[in-house]
Parts: sequence; C-alpha cells; structure tokens
Amino acid sequence: MSAVDEPSAPGSEPLTLAQIAELAGVSVATVSKVVNGRSAVAPETRALVEGLIQQRGFRRQRRRGNPAAVVELVFHELAGDYPTEIIKGVGQVAREHHLAVAVSELQGSHTPGADWLEDVLSRRPTGVIAVFSSLTDLQRDRLANSDIPLVLLDPPGDPGHRIPSVGAGNWHGGLTATRHLLELGHRRIAIITGPAGTLSSRARLDGYRAALDTAGLPVDPDLICQGDFQIQDGLIHTRRLLRLPHSPTAIFTCNDGQATGVYHAAHGLGLRIPEDLSVIGFDDMPSMRWAIPPLTTIRQPLTEMAAAATRMVVTLASDEPLSQDRIEFATNLIVRASTSPPKKAGTT
Amino acid sequence: MSAVDEPSAPGSEPLTLAQIAELAGVSVATVSKVVNGRSAVAPETRALVEGLIQQRGFRRQRRRGNPAAVVELVFHELAGDYPTEIIKGVGQVAREHHLAVAVSELQGSHTPGADWLEDVLSRRPTGVIAVFSSLTDLQRDRLANSDIPLVLLDPPGDPGHRIPSVGAGNWHGGLTATRHLLELGHRRIAIITGPAGTLSSRARLDGYRAALDTAGLPVDPDLICQGDFQIQDGLIHTRRLLRLPHSPTAIFTCNDGQATGVYHAAHGLGLRIPEDLSVIGFDDMPSMRWAIPPLTTIRQPLTEMAAAATRMVVTLASDEPLSQDRIEFATNLIVRASTSPPKKAGTT
Repeated sequence: MSAVDEPSAPGSEPLTLAQIAELAGVSVATVSKVVNGRSAVAPETRALVEGLIQQRGFRRQRRRGNPAAVVELVFHELAGDYPTEIIKGVGQVAREHHLAVAVSELQGSHTPGADWLEDVLSRRPTGVIAVFSSLTDLQRDRLANSDIPLVLLDPPGDPGHRIPSVGAGNWHGGLTATRHLLELGHRRIAIITGPAGTLSSRARLDGYRAALDTAGLPVDPDLICQGDFQIQDGLIHTRRLLRLPHSPTAIFTCNDGQATGVYHAAHGLGLRIPEDLSVIGFDDMPSMRWAIPPLTTIRQPLTEMAAAATRMVVTLASDEPLSQDRIEFATNLIVRASTSPPKKAGTT
Repeated sequence: MSAVDEPSAPGSEPLTLAQIAELAGVSVATVSKVVNGRSAVAPETRALVEGLIQQRGFRRQRRRGNPAAVVELVFHELAGDYPTEIIKGVGQVAREHHLAVAVSELQGSHTPGADWLEDVLSRRPTGVIAVFSSLTDLQRDRLANSDIPLVLLDPPGDPGHRIPSVGAGNWHGGLTATRHLLELGHRRIAIITGPAGTLSSRARLDGYRAALDTAGLPVDPDLICQGDFQIQDGLIHTRRLLRLPHSPTAIFTCNDGQATGVYHAAHGLGLRIPEDLSVIGFDDMPSMRWAIPPLTTIRQPLTEMAAAATRMVVTLASDEPLSQDRIEFATNLIVRASTSPPKKAGTT
C-alpha cells in the first residue's frame, strides 16, 4: 500500500471521493466501499481511508447543473404484462412531478452492461429504478458519485440495508397460498419456484414450507421444483409431477406465467382445472383474470409498488431523508376458479 | 384582417414562423397550417402568408442547443403485452443511437392533453412516436415549430401524407384471415371490429368483405359486430352471435384480446374451440401462443414496426430526408390450433 502524500488539495475543503482515492493510493471503488459501509475492504485500507475522512472531511461530488427531468426504469427483461403494470405505476407519480419515464431492458441479464451505465450517466437522470435486477458495486458507486439516487424494485438478491428497495410480503404470500390449498383439503401440494438465489422466490418457498410444517405435514423434496419464472417451467415440471406414483393434487407456482404452463400441461394430459388439479399463482397479472378458468393467485400490487419506488426516487433527489429504506407491500389472496377441494380425500 | 406593416426584421434574412405571423397579423398556428399545406385557412389569409414567404423566404426556427437524447413514446393506453412489444422495438434502435426511450400514457385518450405537450416541449426530445394515438393540429404545429419530429405508429385515423407513419397491411390481413376460414369450409363467418373511425379496423373489415365477395358469398350485417379492441367485445358479441338462429361457425376478431373474450364466451356456453367454433385473431401477441388452444392469428410485426418508426425519428432529427413518408409492413397468417373445418358442411 502506498504512503499518504501531503495533501495538495485546498486545505479546509472536505475531500471528494476521487481526492481521497488519490491520497490513499487506492481506487475510487475502494473508497466508495468504505464510505458506503461495505465489507470486502482490507482492514488497513479501511483504516487509512477512514483516517483521511476523519482528518479532512468528505463531500459527495455534486453534479453540475440540475438533473434531467427523467426517471430511468431498467428491466432485466421486457416480456408479458409485468412491465406494463410497473410502467403504469411509475408513470402515475412521474406525471405529478413532470418527470419522463425512460425505459430500458437488459435483455435477460440481471446486471446492466457498461454501455447502459455510460448512457444513463450522460443523461443525468433524477434517479434510477432497477426492476428485478441489480447493479454491480462499481455501477452503484458511479451512480452515487454522480448523486443519482437508485431504488430497487422487487430485487432478485439482497439489496443490503443501504440501498433503498420496494418489495412485497413474499413469505406471507407463500404461506397464504399454501394454507388456501390446505384448507381446501389438499395434502400433496407441489411448488414451482423462481431461480435459485432470488430472495423473493426463496421467501415464497419458505412460506410454503412453514404452512406445511404448521399443518403437521412433511415437506416432500420431490414436490419442490426449481424454475426460472418462465411459462416453460410450469409445463415441464407439471408433466414430471403428474407422472409421480403419488402425484400432487395441487400446484403453487411462484409467478402467474408458470401457472400458464401448468394449465397447458394439464390440458395436454386431459386433466381439468380445478376438478383434477388445483393451481394457484403469484402476482395477479391482468391477463390471468382471463385464463380459463380464471386463476386463483396471490396478488402483489406491482403498480402501487412501482409508484412507491418512484416516490422514493423523488424524495432522494430532493435530498430529503426517506422515512424507511425498505418498503414492503402486503400480498393478498385472490380466489378465482382454479382451486377447489381435491377429488378424493387427501392422504397424508 | 390587419394590414401588413413595413417589416422591421433584418432585410435579407428569411422569416421565422413567428415573424410571418406578426407581419400578417394572424396566429402562429395559422401560418403553420399554410406552411404545412393544410386546409382550413381562409383563401385571403393563405394568399397573404404565401406572398410574404415568397417575398422574404421562410426558415424553420431552429431549437436552441442540441436536443435531449430521448425518444418520447406515447401510448393511448398501457395494457397487456402490446406496449411491451413496441417498447422492445423502439429500444433496439434507441440503444444503437444512445437514446433513452421515454414512455407516457394518455390513459385511454387518443389525443394528449396540454400538460403532456408542455412536459415534452420542456424536455426537447429527439423526436416523438405516437402509438395508436394522434395529436391535435395545434400540438403538431408546436412540435414542428420546436423542430421535434413526430412519427405515428399504427395511427387510429388518417395521418395525412405529411405526417410520417408506420402501419401494417391491414386490408390484406383481413382478406387473409377470412380466406383462411373460407378455405376450411366456413360460410357463416362473423367479424368483431375495432372502434368506428379507426382506419386499421376499417381496412380489416374491408378485407373481410372482399374475401366474402370474391368467394361469391353475401355479407350478412348481423355478423358484423363493432367492438373497441377490448377483451369484453369478444365476450359480449360472441354471446349474441351464438344465439342467432343461423349462428356463425367462425369468428374473426380484429385483435387478439377480443379473441380471449370469444374463448370465454364459447367456454361459458360449453362449446369447444375449434371443434364447435373457429376463432382467428389479429396481432400475434406472445400471450396468445399460450392460449388453450393456441390462437390462429394474423401477425403484424409490432416490434419491427416500432423499430422502423424509431429509425424514421432518427433520420428526421438528423435533418435527412425520409425515403418514404409511410412505411407499411406486410401481415401474415400464423396457423395454430383455434381454426378447423366446421362440424358439418357450411350452408350458403
């Protein structure tokens, strides 16, 4: 590690991130990690940077001029009506504040590439909302250093307590979905999850387990299928599940798209929903109100969640404090026609 | 009408719209109408304005500074996966040009309000794409005067030859859909249209009529149902159609959403698709590939159409001429599982 040179910057002025990095002989990213309280910094580096800040003070680099009247909304994927619901919610709040809503897509990736960041930085938006996607530490630092607030909506991983985020009561939703099926008399209940490592999916799965546990039922690993929040998951896993010697009478899919796949698989096997197989989804996408039969599901209020994320961006951009860093919306059960008691009494 | 004062503006410089308006004693909007070749201007006013332009020349007011790197995309309504398909197409071209895509919604109105225009003008975007919506003459003039190009995508009315637009081969699509049903042996074919006055819907209806005419079949007004491009249209009209003494064996819906309504109505009446009723849609929305049964439809390539509209905006913003003011994409028949021969030979 290089020694600290005598500071050449103006004596009394607090240091910027870049000045601290130069003085400490480390990268801007490293200083940012220390400033933002993240781990993965060598103790001696942390001590050096913290010493400089204590001695000289630290100021965030203010951006030049006013930000553009734009909220950047980034989706990992544009597919189906999920993006539409979110754009509506962001638009409601953006209109009130005369902000444009700029939409971009990461084409399936959960982290934006370098091009995306450069474009966003050059536009100097009022803020960024990342939907079911995240940013690398470096990307977050670069936004923070340009004083562009970031809010995560339905984040796939752990946002960390310093990154504001909006989510839904996923664990409780998983519990409620499974309890609904239990109350109807189902005992063999399968689950099709989202991708491993996605916290929202993990919480729904844990809610499912908790419902079974508290009902005194065993959790059968054969009935837990890992998916990727895609229609195909429902199709493929249902075909396998229904071939099991002791097949499930109900399936809980961790999003509504997967339920579409379950409908197809059941239809292909000549099974009726809900008479032969009950299905409950998660999300409450408008299109599934028109499925045949209309889908019973756990509603997460995506439009309201998106509006809340936008309000957080507006608050942060005004340099006002957030009342809370994490907002969680309650989920609730919407009973339609895809669930009913199993044909014969369930076996335990 | 006030007399023309001696011009006080610099002698040799061509006049701006505002200067012409002042000299002629008329509004900027009126001058803009003359300049843009529109009617609804009194002949003497037109002569006066044209005289001034001939004498002194005319220059469009260049905007101050560079435009913002944003394409404004305005939808009359954000619902279902139609917006998603279009945002994808705009995004593809926008990314290449490092442009943001700003999405706004007119909440069901086909013409933006005053607020929308003020916000857009203040953002000074590279261009505006209006999707299934239009602008008032005055709104168009104000964009034109700020040198902001406008392109209409799937315009509801007649865009006029001076407003660049992108559409699909709607008439041919209507013809193809109806011919497909005729070739399967259907003779009683109903149509559910879009809103009256919507040219794309009118063209699809005319294609339907042409197919029946050229097959030597009468057009039965009882089988022509006017809808509003909503799911409910399909539901309501199908219930009525299937109660007719000589009910149709096939229904052509002018969008895919309406076909969802037809599926519901048929299911409610205990009819199977396609065994008891054939259905063909229009659009080819991804969700309808997963309908049960998957929907036979006329594909209009919305994503490609949106990309083309964006390319037009980019061209216009570079002050380059368009190779053509109107681009029309061919539609094509996608045969899936919702159409089959009628149960018994059709009657004519």
